[in-house]
Amino acid sequence: MNSQSGIVEHMNEAGELLLHIDPERVPAWAAALRATLAEMPLRIWPDRGDPDQIRYALLWKPPPELFDGLHNLQVIFSVGAGIDHLLSCTTLPAHVPVVRMVEPVLTAGMVEYVIYNVIRFHRRMHEYDVQQRQAQWQVLPQVTAGDLTIGIMGLGVLGEAVASMLTKMNYRVTGWSRSRKSLPGVRSYVGEPELLKFLSDAQILVMLLPMDETTQHILNKGTLAQLPSGACVINAGRGGLIHENDLLNALDKGHISCAALDVFETEPLPEAHLFWRHPNVTVTPHAASLTNPVTAVQFVAENIRRHQNGKRLKHTVVPTDRR
Amino acid sequence: MNSQSGIVEHMNEAGELLLHIDPERVPAWAAALRATLAEMPLRIWPDRGDPDQIRYALLWKPPPELFDGLHNLQVIFSVGAGIDHLLSCTTLPAHVPVVRMVEPVLTAGMVEYVIYNVIRFHRRMHEYDVQQRQAQWQVLPQVTAGDLTIGIMGLGVLGEAVASMLTKMNYRVTGWSRSRKSLPGVRSYVGEPELLKFLSDAQILVMLLPMDETTQHILNKGTLAQLPSGACVINAGRGGLIHENDLLNALDKGHISCAALDVFETEPLPEAHLFWRHPNVTVTPHAASLTNPVTAVQFVAENIRRHQNGKRLKHTVVPTDRR
Repeated sequence: MNSQSGIVEHMNEAGELLLHIDPERVPAWAAALRATLAEMPLRIWPDRGDPDQIRYALLWKPPPELFDGLHNLQVIFSVGAGIDHLLSCTTLPAHVPVVRMVEPVLTAGMVEYVIYNVIRFHRRMHEYDVQQRQAQWQVLPQVTAGDLTIGIMGLGVLGEAVASMLTKMNYRVTGWSRSRKSLPGVRSYVGEPELLKFLSDAQILVMLLPMDETTQHILNKGTLAQLPSGACVINAGRGGLIHENDLLNALDKGHISCAALDVFETEPLPEAHLFWRHPNVTVTPHAASLTNPVTAVQFVAENIRRHQNGKRLKHTVVPTDRR
Repeated sequence: MNSQSGIVEHMNEAGELLLHIDPERVPAWAAALRATLAEMPLRIWPDRGDPDQIRYALLWKPPPELFDGLHNLQVIFSVGAGIDHLLSCTTLPAHVPVVRMVEPVLTAGMVEYVIYNVIRFHRRMHEYDVQQRQAQWQVLPQVTAGDLTIGIMGLGVLGEAVASMLTKMNYRVTGWSRSRKSLPGVRSYVGEPELLKFLSDAQILVMLLPMDETTQHILNKGTLAQLPSGACVINAGRGGLIHENDLLNALDKGHISCAALDVFETEPLPEAHLFWRHPNVTVTPHAASLTNPVTAVQFVAENIRRHQNGKRLKHTVVPTDRR
């Protein structure tokens, strides 16, 4: 079209990368991409330049029209560990591999969030907070970590990292996943047939499942009832994993003693939602773990290099996740 | 004196053990001692039986008269990790070795308490608690664990265990102690000459020092001023380590952004104390870590066996601590 485009085409044998992300996060991501993938032209939605040049896309909640005419798109990278925001896009091209975000800061953040809330409930820190407001000095009876079973629903990269740190702290750890896992010190439960047994042991339940039609409202009146009386729930996966009214009922009856929730069916959590004011619920604003642009872009760049060299991509989504 | 005492003397070649502890804790300790040290007669203060038979004493805050006429006392065990409650007893026999309590549940509890509060401050959970009360959905900027320096004052058994877990979570860890320490991933600062440098880096300061005349009020106006602006303080050692009014002033000025305090100059913390109601102070009632009678008695029993077999006692207090 003009000499400028001629230069771009020349520089551009590896193709271009298209970024779509919340506007306030663009500067940090663009800076990280330009620093680490300096040789690859960056397009920031809605500027797609010449759509034929787009080979890679790094996306959070893409609009349906984003994929129009991206005939040469070869890899889609998710900005987050979850990919439900991509799968729910009706125009997601079925033939293009999707890569989950796996980067050390994201993983570490999730470990921190879960460890914090496990200790909070185990060591009754939420009860000490109440005592403080009443200037009440009273030591509460205490069980040891080894006497407490932490059940992790979902043993992907994040669930496994959380399980590993919990075992280092001597908690009794179980995990529930689609396929049998062999993790040191972690008792593995698999699939529907072993779900109720898994739940019946889980004194603190950690939700780290991906969100899809098989996991929606997986924690509901029936499954909550399987948890031991007084159990605590930590949800760092997706809001839709939990039937929120069922959880509120279980909290009000005391069957569930407390919950730490970072994700919700509607985000931001509406101001009138009962979770905000429930004495036994801790709310954080989907902040358990944030993808770090610098380390995330290193992961993206490594995968692009692998792709260019004909190697297998790391952490692609398995086809059963894409039904 | 009577046939009963004859039997005791016969059973009693290893001597007897005298227990002194808060009355409400006697049943659990007596049960653990009788289960693990079944062959050794147990005396529970104020019943000392025949004082000449007492060879071992397991003590918390002994009254001065406890030691009267205990001519055959050979080892004094502290119920807690700290020994200040023994050293402040004017009648403590100078020639009898004192053994600190080192047992896995006590150590684990301290690790849990410190990790919880480090993550709380690092991940701004105390600020999210405030946001929740206002139904405010706002993600706060976040640094990574590797960008945060946790300075541990005191690298004994507890400080070392805390440091080890913090390094596993990728925090930058420094430690300050009387002698140079070589712990993986922990930068060691030593003594008075390196104190200010240690403090100037410590964004979260963890107090795990023993209490003696060299450490009393070690955190005061002058040393607080050396901490970086916005630093947090966690005190799980002894209340007397901190000049409480100086800390309150530093909190009110914002130079110290928050504090988690488990120990106080006066315990129970008086109801009128400002710490209870300070928005940036978390109070727990000396509950960071409790000695577990079952595992503690195993440690005591092992040391008694070592003593009986002429081996070196484990975790005796070094003479410089007993000035």
